[in-house]
Amino acid sequence: MTALNLGIAGLGNVGCGLVELVNRQLELRLPGPVKIGGVTARSRSRNRAVSIDEFAWFDSAEAMASDPGIDVFVELMGGSDGPAKLSVEAALKAKKPVVTANKALIAEHGTELAALAEEQGVDLLFEAAVAGGVPVVRALRDSLSGISVSRVSGILNGTCNFLTTEMLATGRPYDEVLAEAQRLGYAEADPTLDVSGTDAAHKAAILSAIAFSADVDFSKVSISGVDGIELQDLTFASRLGLMVKLIAEGVRTASGVVCRVEPKALPLDHPIAQVHGSLNTVRIEGDPLGAVVMTGPGAGAGPTASAVMGDISKLFRPGVRSAFGRAEHHRKSTFVEPAGDERSPWFLSAALADRSGTLAALSDALASESVSIDKLLQDSAGEDGASPIGMVTHACRESEVAQAVKTLQNQETLVGKPRLIRIETGQM
Amino acid sequence: MTALNLGIAGLGNVGCGLVELVNRQLELRLPGPVKIGGVTARSRSRNRAVSIDEFAWFDSAEAMASDPGIDVFVELMGGSDGPAKLSVEAALKAKKPVVTANKALIAEHGTELAALAEEQGVDLLFEAAVAGGVPVVRALRDSLSGISVSRVSGILNGTCNFLTTEMLATGRPYDEVLAEAQRLGYAEADPTLDVSGTDAAHKAAILSAIAFSADVDFSKVSISGVDGIELQDLTFASRLGLMVKLIAEGVRTASGVVCRVEPKALPLDHPIAQVHGSLNTVRIEGDPLGAVVMTGPGAGAGPTASAVMGDISKLFRPGVRSAFGRAEHHRKSTFVEPAGDERSPWFLSAALADRSGTLAALSDALASESVSIDKLLQDSAGEDGASPIGMVTHACRESEVAQAVKTLQNQETLVGKPRLIRIETGQM
Repeated sequence: MTALNLGIAGLGNVGCGLVELVNRQLELRLPGPVKIGGVTARSRSRNRAVSIDEFAWFDSAEAMASDPGIDVFVELMGGSDGPAKLSVEAALKAKKPVVTANKALIAEHGTELAALAEEQGVDLLFEAAVAGGVPVVRALRDSLSGISVSRVSGILNGTCNFLTTEMLATGRPYDEVLAEAQRLGYAEADPTLDVSGTDAAHKAAILSAIAFSADVDFSKVSISGVDGIELQDLTFASRLGLMVKLIAEGVRTASGVVCRVEPKALPLDHPIAQVHGSLNTVRIEGDPLGAVVMTGPGAGAGPTASAVMGDISKLFRPGVRSAFGRAEHHRKSTFVEPAGDERSPWFLSAALADRSGTLAALSDALASESVSIDKLLQDSAGEDGASPIGMVTHACRESEVAQAVKTLQNQETLVGKPRLIRIETGQM
Repeated sequence: MTALNLGIAGLGNVGCGLVELVNRQLELRLPGPVKIGGVTARSRSRNRAVSIDEFAWFDSAEAMASDPGIDVFVELMGGSDGPAKLSVEAALKAKKPVVTANKALIAEHGTELAALAEEQGVDLLFEAAVAGGVPVVRALRDSLSGISVSRVSGILNGTCNFLTTEMLATGRPYDEVLAEAQRLGYAEADPTLDVSGTDAAHKAAILSAIAFSADVDFSKVSISGVDGIELQDLTFASRLGLMVKLIAEGVRTASGVVCRVEPKALPLDHPIAQVHGSLNTVRIEGDPLGAVVMTGPGAGAGPTASAVMGDISKLFRPGVRSAFGRAEHHRKSTFVEPAGDERSPWFLSAALADRSGTLAALSDALASESVSIDKLLQDSAGEDGASPIGMVTHACRESEVAQAVKTLQNQETLVGKPRLIRIETGQM
């Protein structure tokens, strides 16, 4: 498959993340090879996480956008107007597909840019503009095009979610937590776009336009943010069984699409009330689906660059991919049977026989296989005289704990059908 | 755009759900029109939720698959072999794209079918085969092709999840809950495929093949189910802080892809431990993403048919869709500002002035706007003498509660900056 030549405009965190992904593309699952045909940014000499020396440098994004050596224009400069808009227009006019992470540009000029792209017969893709690494844009546009959406909603700004989560968890006031977020890189030096709700509103407007087949009209979006939210607001809500989160939503109403960003109080058992920290989450409700919820990292160089790369992967022609997405250049990998000797803690549910010394026998058999007990729970004997037990082991090999259980069954220390269940220790 | 003529093989729940979606396609967001060019099923005369009288009837799925009047072959018959496999092969050989919901077919013969589709240059799509309405297949294959996946895991069988959830919640034994699930339609008359873990294993094998660019090899998948799980296993786990769920996973290891389905014990605060009932959830972990989690209805006529339709929507040519997925025939919809008079319960965080009678004044002002109090919390006065209060109202109009707060501010009953926050009452 012919390589796609990318022209990357903007070499901040996300741009450098993308260069890194291109450098290690053999670990990925793209349909074909990508090359960097050119780069441009405000400064050529700035210190960066990746080297750009080997790439063709352009002084102007617009010039790169229409350069014949570029197949795909990747806009990572940001800003709703100025060079970002001009260069995206230039690329589309030159019949080059555009991939962008620029939510402000798409929320404020998406309708005219989409019309231009359609006129030119090229793709304008912006997965990375909404919810970072969560692949919601194409899921909503294509995979869920067979449902009639009634509502899209969620947490679309990780900075605001970090602020409210952290204020409540640590009992510290807004200003202090914001300063910490800025130190940690979770908030910009000028946090206005985030804390005012504008950033979340950009994303909600984009999702609403897709969900409801509407022209995106950012002027109609109702926006209020978390700026100035007080610790009391969060703690009193919590004491009344509510969790305050900045919620973005688009709803189909009789008069039209209502798109709104505001702090909302959710019941504590609401699924989205438990999405904490800098995560993003989007819920799509429609008929005949019910609802799907997608959650993941809403920002960061890696997740956002991977979303950009996901868009790029759709630009290879011909557009028919192999059913499982395989390509010749992918790392070879084959299914193998589990080795059976993985270490893990184990949960054992069983019954001890109705005679004395069984607990000692249990503990001996485990010890002789080097299995140690973390927790144990024994209940009164049932009618059959056997005492139900539940046990959690420290991490050990499957073969070890299985052998101990077998010994105990042979001894008739354990009766009935013991059940050995692996305990998940990772995030899952 | 030219209409796509579907040939639908199989008219059970999902097939009828798809016919219904075709009938109401003007509510959806497809790129162009779809028509039903032919149908086939075991019985033509069976009572169905939708009428099929107007559609061309085929006695054989294979004959329909290669009929020149059919553009897309939709296989909803099920079964890993027999007519499903023969007709899918016939369609691919006739260079017709295939959309299927058949997990057994794809898990057991996916590699050869994918090779055939690739040879013929047509799509073989199976979004509906995994996790029903949750659009994970294309997200993993395409949108997330820019990450290197280390693990896919989740709950992929709603029947098993319903069984364990319900046993634990109601304290009833396996057989009784299984019988109830069968009555409710959550389990088949013959539940073996589900409770043995085989169904989840089919889906895990498909996701693993995509995630790790591996030939799908179902013979290597390690499978154990929930059949015969006892109430004690679940209750003792719960008392030890663990939740037992049937977990499907695929992991990249040094020796290859390990794909496994088994009951696992998850810490109660693990995100997936809280996915209950018949929901499905998939977690995709990779670099440089971190992880995304997708949750939704894993079965049912509507969700599954909508996933089939999502696949169909990708078969229109040319493949470039408008950026927001709009098409001329879509329902018109425009952004409007919120009306501002929506009814909702409200959370108020405020401070009562340092004088007597303020609580009475609060209650009067609310009553005169017909706002009634659901819950109220008042704390001791702070150093400034004002008493912080938190309040939850019953549902009322935004204008009413806003007016009451304004009155109270004018009276100086409320001091400082009262904050009025909408309470979410829906699922969100």
